[in-house]
Amino acid sequence: MSKPILLNAFHMNCVAHQSMGLWRHPRDRSRDYRSIEYWLRLARTLERGAIDGIFLADVSGVYDVFRGSPDAAIRNAAQIPANDPFCVVPAMAAVTKNLCFGVTGSIPYEPPYAFARRISTLDHLTDGRLAWNVVTGYLESAARGAGQAGQTSHDTRYDIAEDYMAAVYALWEGSWEDDAVVVDREHGIFADPAKVHRVQHDGPYFRVDGIHLCEPSPQRTPVIFQAGSSTRGQAFAARHAECVFAVSASRKEMAGLVRRLRADAVAAGREPDALRIFPLIGIVTGETDAEAAAKLDGYRACARTEGALALLSGWTGFDFGTLDLDARAENVRSEAIQSLVVRAGARTVREWAEFLCIGGAAVVFSGSPATVVDEMEQWMDDTGVDGFNVAYTVVPECIDDLVDLVVPELRRRGRCRSNPVEATMRRRLFGHGDRVRDTHPAAAHRRTPRDRAATPA
Amino acid sequence: MSKPILLNAFHMNCVAHQSMGLWRHPRDRSRDYRSIEYWLRLARTLERGAIDGIFLADVSGVYDVFRGSPDAAIRNAAQIPANDPFCVVPAMAAVTKNLCFGVTGSIPYEPPYAFARRISTLDHLTDGRLAWNVVTGYLESAARGAGQAGQTSHDTRYDIAEDYMAAVYALWEGSWEDDAVVVDREHGIFADPAKVHRVQHDGPYFRVDGIHLCEPSPQRTPVIFQAGSSTRGQAFAARHAECVFAVSASRKEMAGLVRRLRADAVAAGREPDALRIFPLIGIVTGETDAEAAAKLDGYRACARTEGALALLSGWTGFDFGTLDLDARAENVRSEAIQSLVVRAGARTVREWAEFLCIGGAAVVFSGSPATVVDEMEQWMDDTGVDGFNVAYTVVPECIDDLVDLVVPELRRRGRCRSNPVEATMRRRLFGHGDRVRDTHPAAAHRRTPRDRAATPA
Repeated sequence: MSKPILLNAFHMNCVAHQSMGLWRHPRDRSRDYRSIEYWLRLARTLERGAIDGIFLADVSGVYDVFRGSPDAAIRNAAQIPANDPFCVVPAMAAVTKNLCFGVTGSIPYEPPYAFARRISTLDHLTDGRLAWNVVTGYLESAARGAGQAGQTSHDTRYDIAEDYMAAVYALWEGSWEDDAVVVDREHGIFADPAKVHRVQHDGPYFRVDGIHLCEPSPQRTPVIFQAGSSTRGQAFAARHAECVFAVSASRKEMAGLVRRLRADAVAAGREPDALRIFPLIGIVTGETDAEAAAKLDGYRACARTEGALALLSGWTGFDFGTLDLDARAENVRSEAIQSLVVRAGARTVREWAEFLCIGGAAVVFSGSPATVVDEMEQWMDDTGVDGFNVAYTVVPECIDDLVDLVVPELRRRGRCRSNPVEATMRRRLFGHGDRVRDTHPAAAHRRTPRDRAATPA
Repeated sequence: MSKPILLNAFHMNCVAHQSMGLWRHPRDRSRDYRSIEYWLRLARTLERGAIDGIFLADVSGVYDVFRGSPDAAIRNAAQIPANDPFCVVPAMAAVTKNLCFGVTGSIPYEPPYAFARRISTLDHLTDGRLAWNVVTGYLESAARGAGQAGQTSHDTRYDIAEDYMAAVYALWEGSWEDDAVVVDREHGIFADPAKVHRVQHDGPYFRVDGIHLCEPSPQRTPVIFQAGSSTRGQAFAARHAECVFAVSASRKEMAGLVRRLRADAVAAGREPDALRIFPLIGIVTGETDAEAAAKLDGYRACARTEGALALLSGWTGFDFGTLDLDARAENVRSEAIQSLVVRAGARTVREWAEFLCIGGAAVVFSGSPATVVDEMEQWMDDTGVDGFNVAYTVVPECIDDLVDLVVPELRRRGRCRSNPVEATMRRRLFGHGDRVRDTHPAAAHRRTPRDRAATPA
């Protein structure tokens, strides 16, 4: 039997995530992102469809590269306003047993001691259904918001990230031994102080000196997600990532990236199956190809190119506002975006922007469920990925369509895990233990042979 | 009719909050604090009893003053392990419509830009049912955990707090005008950039330069809770607090404190009714006085003095481990603790510790519902407080007893708000608008006459 296709819903705690202008669609409800009911409904739908996870993107700044101002982003609700992604996890966890949560957290903007605690708390509350998408920040505005003079250089950000990871790994893995909590009611001993250790991390960027405030959570270190596409980013992924979120519209390019990522992980001392890799896709589907095409036309009618260019300018650092909409733009620096543009056959700035309005940086599979799943299977076969992060265009319609149309087709073809079990996210993904493997850098922070023995081979 | 008695359940995301050793009680379930079901059950019970709020305490360090080590705290689970309090709010909000949430957040350990965003997100998700209990931190261990060289001096901590408040007020009140979000689908304008302002706060301790990431939440600034008992703490409360959490076992002392707090608020330019004041109490009740007494005896049998002394040493900064258990201790520096000790008639360190094991720093009302409510009414009459923060001893038993025994008695006497309406916490508490009043320091950060006019007189 073919391997299951893992699926994450790609979402963000905001109005306009990837598909600019689509909040205007008559059936779109993204305006309701502020309400808890929005997230409960979303979680229940995903759980009903046995979707593996929801992946929550985040930025902590505003897209102000386009025309040197945040105005276009604000007008288009382009990832601004954007509420905190961690806050919606406990609400969704309250109504699900199987849905997993991948949440983006920016390293530069939260001190490691408090952040490690929040993650452990969420890992407890979700019974170990938590992943953290490690990002190093890229928006100048985010650094300024956080009170920094400006964004640090790209490579320095990865030095900072290495230091941060060492601090949080030490808290998660090295503070409480597995058998520290004894709950001995008779003798009044809740935990054995000899097995609770002070973490002393004195790194170039971060200092921690204290006991981790939380007892061990089901996974201790959450599943580590990473999405860096640069050389340094891929080196970081090879060491730390258990899941990689990748963006390309070209199967050939994706296949090369997958080979390279897996080889790099092995070169970093990890297993050939150490990584689960998820490209970004969008899906627009209906009962038939024609119905899907009509739906896609309706979506396109809501597109707003200004919003797409605001995002694109932020992603690439190049101000597309300096170009005429009818101009050919050759100077896009992002490979991922270029592959999309090639696929789209777009020639002018306007055509690029229109293309990006449907699914953003995602390659979009559109058609009947059979057509969509054909594309998914072709991607699985040709690239060696493990599943997909699926961007929405109109919400909740696209989530409902995923669950009600695409999932049944995947089930017919035996490509879904049909009987989800209550287990940690790591065990679901890799089929072995709840904790990081011995070859993962977090494992080096374990203190005792016993803790090490608790890890699966 | 007498004014309603406002009630908050006093809780913490940990095993042993105030009542040391009680986690050993056969009916106690505090061990389940890690699970989401624990919090959902608690929230549903409080909602059923129309309890006004849950007040979540927090510390971000470990009690290591007692014998110069965290060992006693760890053995007794004395507020360690302690999970993040903010994370349980969305879960509880998912199953309630009326319960309000007062959450403790330590100023020194979270940067203002990210913190302001988290608070706004929670205010959105709870439909404005959020209060923030502002604490400045007092444990040396918390400062070290956060990477600081050590705890700053008490007065400096309040200087830092003033700077922090100015930064977060500016983000909450001064970034997005009330009519910035227009949701104009036809013209593709979600928000009007001219009405979204960059906050530039350059204070002695904190710097913020950016647009607040969240659009205005129902309350903008959450209800501000404060619990400082020092002179500087009370001055801070007079300026900023809307609710004050106060600790004393003496009605006379509490009456004096209430008069002083209200007079100080007026001297700071605020209204005579600007504050809602909640003393800390514990309740041990049963159908009859005898049943309550038997229950109390059962609780006392589980007490652990070592845990109480670990807490007491942390609160006072004095190491009670240097004293013999049978010694008289005269050098307790905390007035609140002294008033408790006087009430208890305790003479030795052991007797003090045993007394503190039931309800911690709370004065405990024990007896039938009529006896308990008699005490509550006497406190209301004699002190001028507005209600109580009610500590538990055994959980969920004490919460169930509060709802099933005490609330019906309060209802019989017309001291409950019988028909809670869906409204923001501020409107519930004060009966007027959702936003801070004009006399509150947060109001000074409003940018436009329109925003100012949106505030009630």
